[in-house]
Amino acid sequence: MNRNQLVNQIKQKKSFLCVGLDSDIKKIPSHLLNEPNPLLSFNKAIIAATKDFCVSYKINTAFYEASGAKGWETMEQTLEAIPQEIFTIADAKRGDIGNTSDMYARAFFEQLNFDAVTLAPYMGQDSLAPFFSYTDKWGIVLALTSNPGSADFEQLHVGEQRLYERVIDTFSSTFNHEQLMFVVGATKPAELGLIRKQVPNHFFLVPGVGAQGGSLQEVTKHGINADCGLLINASRSIIYAGSGEDFAEKAAQEAKSMAAEMAELLTQYHIN
Amino acid sequence: MNRNQLVNQIKQKKSFLCVGLDSDIKKIPSHLLNEPNPLLSFNKAIIAATKDFCVSYKINTAFYEASGAKGWETMEQTLEAIPQEIFTIADAKRGDIGNTSDMYARAFFEQLNFDAVTLAPYMGQDSLAPFFSYTDKWGIVLALTSNPGSADFEQLHVGEQRLYERVIDTFSSTFNHEQLMFVVGATKPAELGLIRKQVPNHFFLVPGVGAQGGSLQEVTKHGINADCGLLINASRSIIYAGSGEDFAEKAAQEAKSMAAEMAELLTQYHIN
Repeated sequence: MNRNQLVNQIKQKKSFLCVGLDSDIKKIPSHLLNEPNPLLSFNKAIIAATKDFCVSYKINTAFYEASGAKGWETMEQTLEAIPQEIFTIADAKRGDIGNTSDMYARAFFEQLNFDAVTLAPYMGQDSLAPFFSYTDKWGIVLALTSNPGSADFEQLHVGEQRLYERVIDTFSSTFNHEQLMFVVGATKPAELGLIRKQVPNHFFLVPGVGAQGGSLQEVTKHGINADCGLLINASRSIIYAGSGEDFAEKAAQEAKSMAAEMAELLTQYHIN
Repeated sequence: MNRNQLVNQIKQKKSFLCVGLDSDIKKIPSHLLNEPNPLLSFNKAIIAATKDFCVSYKINTAFYEASGAKGWETMEQTLEAIPQEIFTIADAKRGDIGNTSDMYARAFFEQLNFDAVTLAPYMGQDSLAPFFSYTDKWGIVLALTSNPGSADFEQLHVGEQRLYERVIDTFSSTFNHEQLMFVVGATKPAELGLIRKQVPNHFFLVPGVGAQGGSLQEVTKHGINADCGLLINASRSIIYAGSGEDFAEKAAQEAKSMAAEMAELLTQYHIN
C-alpha cells in the first residue's frame, strides 16, 4: 500500500487507529477454547467488529511464534481475514546482516503479504536496507519506544544528539516518507513533538496509548502533520475490553470510541 | 544446558565450533529438491556429517520464516535432529517490551527447546529481562557485530564509552556469565580483545570467520579465556562447501579442518 492510499483511508474513515492483535491463548474468552483454532476465531471476531473504526492492524509476531508452526499458520490466516484496503503491520522488530534481512523481507513481504514490518536499528543502516527494496512496502524503524528501558540506550547522548535522533537522521537521510516510518512511544509526547520537527513528513507508529497510559490528545497535539502522519496503536485495551461472550461487541465499542475521538481531532486540526 | 556442560563439551571434542544452519532453498544442492522436505533433508545430512566436529548449532530463524508455517515446522524438526549434548542457538535477534519478550521466550525456550537465543538490545534492559528468567537457558546479546553498519550506532561514543561497551556494561552488571553471552564479530579482533578485558568470564558468540573474512587465529588470540569462552560460528563456508551429491562430505571436511585448527589452539592456550 502506498502513502496516498493510506492517507485517503484515514480521511475517509476519519480514524488513524491501528488495532494490535497481541492475541494470547491465555487471555482470550474461555468459551473460544472449544473452537478448532481459538486464536483464529478470536482474531476473526475482533477484525469483523473493529474494521470500520481502524485503518491498520498490527500483528505482534511473538504471540504467534509462541504456538510454533501452528501459530505461524494462524498469523497467515489472520492476515487473510483482514480487508484488502486496511494497512497491515508485522510487529516483528527484525534486523540482521544483509543476507539474513533479505530472508526476513522475503518472509514478511513475499511469503506473507504484509504492508509493513517493524525493524530494530542497532546493527546499522546496511542491516535494514533489504526491507526498503520493495515497492509500496514499508519499514518502520524503532526510534523512541514507550518502555522505561528506552532510557538505557535510546536516550543516551551521542555527541549533540540522542541516539534515537541519530537513528532517525541516519534512516531518513536515505529512505523517504513513502516507505519509512518510525516507532515513537505515546508516553513521551514532548519528545514526540521534537521528533515531528526533525522529520515533518514521515508517519509515526505510536504505541503506548491505552494499557501503557499515553494520552491520545497529547500525542495528536505534538505529532500530527498535514497528512495526519500518525498511526496510533491500541492492543490490550481494545482486544481484551471484554472477557465474556460479548468480547467482540466490547472491542467494537472501545474502537468506536477511540475513532470518534480521532474524528474530532482530525476536524480540530483541519485534516479532511 | 549449563556453563559447565558447555565447557566440558568443548574440552572433550577439542572444538569451539558453532555451525550455522543458514539453509536457503535457493542454494542447497539441486538433487535434494526431489525430497519431500529439501531443507530438512539438507539439514539432517549436514548435522550427521558435522556433529563430531562442533559443539553448537545456530539456527538462523530468518531462513525458516521465509518458508512460512512449513519453515517453522522445519526448524522444529531440525532442532529434534540435533544430538542432546550439543548447544543449540536460535539466531533470532529478538527484543521487545516485556509482555512481548515473554512470548518470544516462550516460543524459543518452551515451544521450541533451544538452549539460547540471540537478542537485540536497542530497547534496553527491561526489554530482554524475560529471557533471563529460565534456568539453564541463555540470552546472547548483540554487542559489536561484523557488518560495516556497526559503525552507524554500535561504535558511537556515549560519554567515555562506545555504545557497544555500554550495552555490555548494562547487561553484564545484571546477568552473569551462567546465562549471558555477547555477540562480537570476528572482523574486529583488537576490539574483541578490549571486550575480553571488560568481561573476562562471559562467552562470546563470534560470527564472521569464513565467508565474512575474520581470522580464527586472531579471534582466539584476543578472545580466549580460561574456559575457552568462545563459540566461533561458520555458516556458509561449511554448509555450502560442496554443491553436488557429496555436499555433506565436503561440509564434514571443512568442519573437521576448522576443528583441527581449534584443537591446536586449545592446546596452545592450555585449555584441556
